[in-house]
Amino acid sequence: MIRVPAGPGGRLSDAWRSCVGTGRLDLALRRDYQDSLALLQRDIGFRYLRGHGLLSDGLGIHRPYEWQGVRRTHHSFTYLDQVIDACLGLGIRPFLELGFMPGALASGEQTVFWWRGNVTPPADEKEWTGLVRAVLAHLVDRYGADEVRTWPIEVWNEPDLPQFWQDADEAAYHRLYEVTAHAVKEVDAALQVGGPALSPAADGWLERFAEFAERRDVPVDFVSRHAYTSGPAQHVPFGVHQTLAPASDLLDQFAAPGRVLEGTRLAGLPVHITEFNSSYRPDNPVHDTAFHAAYLAPVVTAGGDHADSFSYWTFSDVFEETGIPTALFHGGFGLLTHRQVRKPTYHLYAFMARTGEERLARGDDHVVTRHADGRVTVLAWAPVDETGRTPGPDRHTVRLSVPVGTAPRGEAFVRRSSVDEERGNAYTAWRHMGSPRSPKPAQLDVLHEAAEPARGHHRLPVEDGRADLTLTLARHEITLVELTPLVDETPPWWDERRLLGGEAP
Amino acid sequence: MIRVPAGPGGRLSDAWRSCVGTGRLDLALRRDYQDSLALLQRDIGFRYLRGHGLLSDGLGIHRPYEWQGVRRTHHSFTYLDQVIDACLGLGIRPFLELGFMPGALASGEQTVFWWRGNVTPPADEKEWTGLVRAVLAHLVDRYGADEVRTWPIEVWNEPDLPQFWQDADEAAYHRLYEVTAHAVKEVDAALQVGGPALSPAADGWLERFAEFAERRDVPVDFVSRHAYTSGPAQHVPFGVHQTLAPASDLLDQFAAPGRVLEGTRLAGLPVHITEFNSSYRPDNPVHDTAFHAAYLAPVVTAGGDHADSFSYWTFSDVFEETGIPTALFHGGFGLLTHRQVRKPTYHLYAFMARTGEERLARGDDHVVTRHADGRVTVLAWAPVDETGRTPGPDRHTVRLSVPVGTAPRGEAFVRRSSVDEERGNAYTAWRHMGSPRSPKPAQLDVLHEAAEPARGHHRLPVEDGRADLTLTLARHEITLVELTPLVDETPPWWDERRLLGGEAP
Amino acid sequence: MIRVPAGPGGRLSDAWRSCVGTGRLDLALRRDYQDSLALLQRDIGFRYLRGHGLLSDGLGIHRPYEWQGVRRTHHSFTYLDQVIDACLGLGIRPFLELGFMPGALASGEQTVFWWRGNVTPPADEKEWTGLVRAVLAHLVDRYGADEVRTWPIEVWNEPDLPQFWQDADEAAYHRLYEVTAHAVKEVDAALQVGGPALSPAADGWLERFAEFAERRDVPVDFVSRHAYTSGPAQHVPFGVHQTLAPASDLLDQFAAPGRVLEGTRLAGLPVHITEFNSSYRPDNPVHDTAFHAAYLAPVVTAGGDHADSFSYWTFSDVFEETGIPTALFHGGFGLLTHRQVRKPTYHLYAFMARTGEERLARGDDHVVTRHADGRVTVLAWAPVDETGRTPGPDRHTVRLSVPVGTAPRGEAFVRRSSVDEERGNAYTAWRHMGSPRSPKPAQLDVLHEAAEPARGHHRLPVEDGRADLTLTLARHEITLVELTPLVDETPPWWDERRLLGGEAP
Amino acid sequence: MIRVPAGPGGRLSDAWRSCVGTGRLDLALRRDYQDSLALLQRDIGFRYLRGHGLLSDGLGIHRPYEWQGVRRTHHSFTYLDQVIDACLGLGIRPFLELGFMPGALASGEQTVFWWRGNVTPPADEKEWTGLVRAVLAHLVDRYGADEVRTWPIEVWNEPDLPQFWQDADEAAYHRLYEVTAHAVKEVDAALQVGGPALSPAADGWLERFAEFAERRDVPVDFVSRHAYTSGPAQHVPFGVHQTLAPASDLLDQFAAPGRVLEGTRLAGLPVHITEFNSSYRPDNPVHDTAFHAAYLAPVVTAGGDHADSFSYWTFSDVFEETGIPTALFHGGFGLLTHRQVRKPTYHLYAFMARTGEERLARGDDHVVTRHADGRVTVLAWAPVDETGRTPGPDRHTVRLSVPVGTAPRGEAFVRRSSVDEERGNAYTAWRHMGSPRSPKPAQLDVLHEAAEPARGHHRLPVEDGRADLTLTLARHEITLVELTPLVDETPPWWDERRLLGGEAP
Repeated sequence: MIRVPAGPGGRLSDAWRSCVGTGRLDLALRRDYQDSLALLQRDIGFRYLRGHGLLSDGLGIHRPYEWQGVRRTHHSFTYLDQVIDACLGLGIRPFLELGFMPGALASGEQTVFWWRGNVTPPADEKEWTGLVRAVLAHLVDRYGADEVRTWPIEVWNEPDLPQFWQDADEAAYHRLYEVTAHAVKEVDAALQVGGPALSPAADGWLERFAEFAERRDVPVDFVSRHAYTSGPAQHVPFGVHQTLAPASDLLDQFAAPGRVLEGTRLAGLPVHITEFNSSYRPDNPVHDTAFHAAYLAPVVTAGGDHADSFSYWTFSDVFEETGIPTALFHGGFGLLTHRQVRKPTYHLYAFMARTGEERLARGDDHVVTRHADGRVTVLAWAPVDETGRTPGPDRHTVRLSVPVGTAPRGEAFVRRSSVDEERGNAYTAWRHMGSPRSPKPAQLDVLHEAAEPARGHHRLPVEDGRADLTLTLARHEITLVELTPLVDETPPWWDERRLLGGEAP
Repeated sequence: MIRVPAGPGGRLSDAWRSCVGTGRLDLALRRDYQDSLALLQRDIGFRYLRGHGLLSDGLGIHRPYEWQGVRRTHHSFTYLDQVIDACLGLGIRPFLELGFMPGALASGEQTVFWWRGNVTPPADEKEWTGLVRAVLAHLVDRYGADEVRTWPIEVWNEPDLPQFWQDADEAAYHRLYEVTAHAVKEVDAALQVGGPALSPAADGWLERFAEFAERRDVPVDFVSRHAYTSGPAQHVPFGVHQTLAPASDLLDQFAAPGRVLEGTRLAGLPVHITEFNSSYRPDNPVHDTAFHAAYLAPVVTAGGDHADSFSYWTFSDVFEETGIPTALFHGGFGLLTHRQVRKPTYHLYAFMARTGEERLARGDDHVVTRHADGRVTVLAWAPVDETGRTPGPDRHTVRLSVPVGTAPRGEAFVRRSSVDEERGNAYTAWRHMGSPRSPKPAQLDVLHEAAEPARGHHRLPVEDGRADLTLTLARHEITLVELTPLVDETPPWWDERRLLGGEAP
Repeated sequence: MIRVPAGPGGRLSDAWRSCVGTGRLDLALRRDYQDSLALLQRDIGFRYLRGHGLLSDGLGIHRPYEWQGVRRTHHSFTYLDQVIDACLGLGIRPFLELGFMPGALASGEQTVFWWRGNVTPPADEKEWTGLVRAVLAHLVDRYGADEVRTWPIEVWNEPDLPQFWQDADEAAYHRLYEVTAHAVKEVDAALQVGGPALSPAADGWLERFAEFAERRDVPVDFVSRHAYTSGPAQHVPFGVHQTLAPASDLLDQFAAPGRVLEGTRLAGLPVHITEFNSSYRPDNPVHDTAFHAAYLAPVVTAGGDHADSFSYWTFSDVFEETGIPTALFHGGFGLLTHRQVRKPTYHLYAFMARTGEERLARGDDHVVTRHADGRVTVLAWAPVDETGRTPGPDRHTVRLSVPVGTAPRGEAFVRRSSVDEERGNAYTAWRHMGSPRSPKPAQLDVLHEAAEPARGHHRLPVEDGRADLTLTLARHEITLVELTPLVDETPPWWDERRLLGGEAP
Repeated sequence: MIRVPAGPGGRLSDAWRSCVGTGRLDLALRRDYQDSLALLQRDIGFRYLRGHGLLSDGLGIHRPYEWQGVRRTHHSFTYLDQVIDACLGLGIRPFLELGFMPGALASGEQTVFWWRGNVTPPADEKEWTGLVRAVLAHLVDRYGADEVRTWPIEVWNEPDLPQFWQDADEAAYHRLYEVTAHAVKEVDAALQVGGPALSPAADGWLERFAEFAERRDVPVDFVSRHAYTSGPAQHVPFGVHQTLAPASDLLDQFAAPGRVLEGTRLAGLPVHITEFNSSYRPDNPVHDTAFHAAYLAPVVTAGGDHADSFSYWTFSDVFEETGIPTALFHGGFGLLTHRQVRKPTYHLYAFMARTGEERLARGDDHVVTRHADGRVTVLAWAPVDETGRTPGPDRHTVRLSVPVGTAPRGEAFVRRSSVDEERGNAYTAWRHMGSPRSPKPAQLDVLHEAAEPARGHHRLPVEDGRADLTLTLARHEITLVELTPLVDETPPWWDERRLLGGEAP
């Protein structure tokens, strides 16, 4: 029995809700995308949204033309404004990523993804910086400088990987960063620019980025990198399997920029993990499982100790990097599938969103918080084999002595919500019903029902201001328990035994 | 094991969804009322709605005034139109009840209910028939004759009870019926008029109503009466307890008009049970229980054998006959509480709404149906002590061999939804949380969650086109089972054992 | 031509949007009420809502009962919570008025209004203060002390009139005020309590209220009174006609408490005009007219100079003091009719809601403001014969030199919205269509269209940073003009003459 | 004065609402698309929706893969089901067009449009017919055969143009048609298949299609072709100008298939004009003008005399054939711009949707209809210079003697809605405000207001059951007039002169 202190505790960092990832920005024009985002914001409430494709041809911003024999450029915001309007309308702000290269401004033909993002340097640096300035000046004009100054602006994505930046040419990236950062600051010196948005295994790049920034006196307002734990992909049609490193590796990766940059001019800057997940593949079934939620629970609850934000990649399966998904469950990154079916990891975030501001206790398998109104919340999870090679234990027990309310004696009302291999698990229901690739409406109803966490409620005695809580967790369960002091308004004349069909005295 | 025939079966009567009761009509102006009705129509879909108060002062129709020294009358439809517009907009039609008496047209002061419906005969018969004609002519003008001809028009309510009709004066009721029926037919001979809307124990009235109708050649298009099974009330503050007769008494009561009217001119007319419930009191806690759903299950599934409609009194706790309710659960008639919490009997109706058109089997504890698309649905319920004096059995088992689909072999996907003393039972949750009279928002969330039926799904083998279904029911459980042939789209390369966190081979 | 200074101007008081009146509180349960309030809040955005009936039987709070031979009282919040939840959900807070007397606590039978509010003193002072404490303690528990402290609490309504307070017994009111104010403060000393909610012609009462408050050292956090300008009623069926005093009388009345209380202990307290309008009758057709909007324009624009709030009585025709309205337009107080048709005075408020924070100029027929983003807004109105005995002038011209934007030369885009006897005037359309008492859906469509202000737009040249604006107003017109500097994005290749159907060069 | 007969008249064909065109089908996933479609269906109510791209890669249906060394194909309906669900949910059915070629099934690289639809024949005919069968079998399984049998199925688009079908190879098209039609019928013989979806100037193809169909005994259930009246394009950046043929040419084109096919086996088949418009370019500003509505008015009102459907190409500017639009108004085909601003031609259709079922009269500048409920509606339009080279007349008058209601004498209430160069014309407002390419929210508000037709209402005397209606139309005006007999409910005591601010007697 762990005795949870009655407090006062420290503040639980909410870095976990700072940012979330998304498929390319023009997908935000879709209705299912916006419906999914609305659900997400109702249940979780992220602050920022980051995705690729801001400058790619799918948003149609960079539009050269010829007039009177001269090449000129329109900057067109028909779609961008729709995307940003939709996000702000749903209470989430953009975390801008400047990339990829517009086709007509590209120096080469190399593209990444099914949707063909061009990853080559600009053919004309002036036209590129003109584009950057035009986009930011437009945003400031439309949304106001006070607003846009709160939007981080990241230069490119994973330039250390040759599929995302031609030849992974480091000098070319530094050059791109430098001219871009200056272009941003020309629009408004208070805009926040940063990078270098590295992939997980590129800490050498980070050191050299710091040297470069110092040497060239380039503005850097934050530092960003990504974090994943999956090994090499073994392919099957429309999917992969991968090995996994322990989830704690993610926390190490979150902390890496701080370690690497110590002593440099970039030390102390905000660190944004602008993408993280277990597998970096949008077709790995691990993303759909209860195992995944339990695997990530210690990361989501503790990540704020190591970084200013860590952005789950991505909130929805509306995502097309390897093509249009061929089945409802296809191992997509999403917290939500198409059709807004909630996955177990969605519930991990939704449970986090119901924890309190004050952290009373944290352990290997739980975190206990208190809300301003006095409610106490326990989020607990079953331990997993972090490699995923064997199932976690059948049963796991968490025992806590929890401070409840202000009265020394009485009762607590306990409400519990759980997700595991069977409960709150639409993936399992989908497998049961024969893995229908494009489910019919009645099947979608079943899946939405199955995605609902199991709910329970009971009373516990309170003695000395405490309730003894024993939680038995099923395999790969995550569970949220909320305790409130019970106020009994049952009138004195109420006699349960007089209720028809009730127990005799 | 009961062998359910593969059909073809007969049609399952849907008289159960023909009509539902409501508190007085001006309550339909309320938002919670309309929200409740919208939910009801989404999940159940009743065809007609019947309530008191059409002509009472709360709708403000009858409006005498003096002008140039002469008394005249406006008929004002400000509120009535809002009420009917709202109903039709939600896909439900009015079952009109002509009553009670406008204050300024009443011959006496006697009123019924907290909201004071005047129950005395008209002071001026001509003004009364003028009112009746004006109302119907207005409805025909606004909604069209084709539409209004589908709305039954009932003359008064329970004239055999002195609290509803001064002195229960039978001759006066016959007179009222006669002039009213003729006034209705003057507007449009194809309008349907009927009565006498008797309380349960008044079959003598019914015989005499038939004689009167024949003798005076009065139009009667349908016959109506009510049905309840509760005994005398034992009062506690804001509530009562009552004994109950067996539910089968309700079926007898439904059948009574047919028996009584045999051989009269009214034989063969549609019979509408324009109110039914267990207790006739809006403050008897039995209405809130799982017992109640199980008690009524045989009535709702079989009532259509005996009457053309039987209208559950009432759909919502938005109802004020004994005053404004003082607690969320207060024994109200409603299928829904205030704030749209679904009671077990709501689920009985919602389960009925998911049964198929073709009846394959019916027994003491189940009915099996098939949908046009081939799905088979089993609605089953636990037996109850119909007096409610002792609890029903802890466990009850229903065993059925069910025909599934057209293929001789394979598997069926089975989806089950259940409501009992603990599951799908917001009343139990409310008691657990201390019976909060006006729950806070977070408590309402818990209640809405608790009102969700328990859901489960599994697969069953199909042999010779049949699945063997064994249903274990908890105390007072009602359960809905839907079986569909399973189509397995799992791709050949799928290997469950490769799923991280999954079972080893 | 009036030269509007370029600023900086002072702040335009927004006391006009501080509060608005409503029919009795239980009407807030209605859907049309909530739909109307939602529209109001979208277009105008009032901060507080004040109405009668908080403690009357229609909300059902005070509920005595007998148990074990003893009389006790439940305080029941079933409806109150729904009402407050709805208001807060629509972004408006309650301005609480403590009254009238619950039937079971009343010392007499006297009632006011069709809905019978009891206006007699409490039969038992302790039970009354218990009720007051219970209501406020409940509100604090449910909504939090921080929230409820922002809600003014007014004791009773117009005690100086015998129809609102039995015998207009001043001593009895002082006694009521004293025990009530203390009861409020017992719950939370930071709650704001005030009164005496006087009718217009009772300044003597105000002086004596100040003396009483000082003498008895009673808490008073604000002072309230009402303001109306209508003379005696000449009745027709379902309506009245009245004479009017000039609108400037309203401003005098707003200022009266400040004058009267000078030198007393109550000097300097916030002054709330908790009701104002032209006529105090809910059946005077003046409320429906364009004349009314033009009559009130100088009051709404200048009232904030004289009082901390002045609450238009009332926002909607959903109101039943003289009975249920018998026609869509019936001279109700509402800014909106039933069915949400906007009246001219609604537009006066909606126009005010689009003015800027900075006041650049104000005259007899206009007020000019600037928004934080630089837009300049002119609200202008035609002069009226304030007695209403003759129509205002056919045409009225307002000429202003308006500062626009920051560039010395260029063009301004001018958007104008107008309401007058013909335009933006559903009342006129309703008269044209034959005054249908309960309009059919197609007629309601016409009325909603007709209620839309006339819109126009054009360009004006800007010279020396100014545009010369000449506004010609029709009889009883109110008009809103918004000027923005024009940014011309027409591309250089655009040739209007090439547009098919366009003007030849 | 034209005397409109009192009837009975014939039925007004509603072929005009049978079908409407759309940008490629995957755009239907977008929120703005669905919002636009919802608006369209509310105001107009088309029955079918036809667009390109069903089989193109953007819907992701044809998905080859390799497994165990063998090439296989998944048919994936993730997006298609979303698209069809959305359409049916909004009350519009698909008019299926089978094309273009999936990339992995194409025999060549040639594509059409910015979004790269492949226009080459299938590399493997069996795989193509497998794809066709799979799509239709899936639709039948999901939506039911009864439903899908109502969806016309058209083979390819404009095969007579080399940009839409490689080399405009006629024999190859006949081959494609033949195998495709048989594949469709294999799924269900009652599905309706047709073609050849010709461009305007290809009547020779139609003759040969008939010969081919007869010779090869190929199923043809309907015949389709397109109709446009524009001449060659003169380019400016992001736009074109074109000359126009008279609108009556469109009616000739609608009638062409009937003429050409006379005497062939295809004579008498339904003729569907599966695309029509003035200009065939999505960047011709004519589409945005009032001229356009007046130009098309005689076509939309009379087209049903010549074809079973004629589908306006397209309902929305959400359309990307020449790229992502660079300005709100850009000459797109849409009845609606991005952001749901209604163009004049939208109103032409919305006015048509308010005409009655019975045609009383039709002339060069008007059509008069009567509704089942007796309302009479006049749709009138100003004449235009059909070449668009000069503006239409300043003023145009239409004089009609219109039968109104059943009473010989009385008054008519007249409601008029108008759109012309200034009124109901967001394009003009947009030009006034400087042609903002991506308008800010406040500018969009102005545009939505400006797009509202001008509304007016007055009374006309009725004599001998007729009202004399004189309509003065502005340049390029279209106007809708609705006449209803006036029922005057003004009470006898009403004296307009007593209204404050009203005219003295």
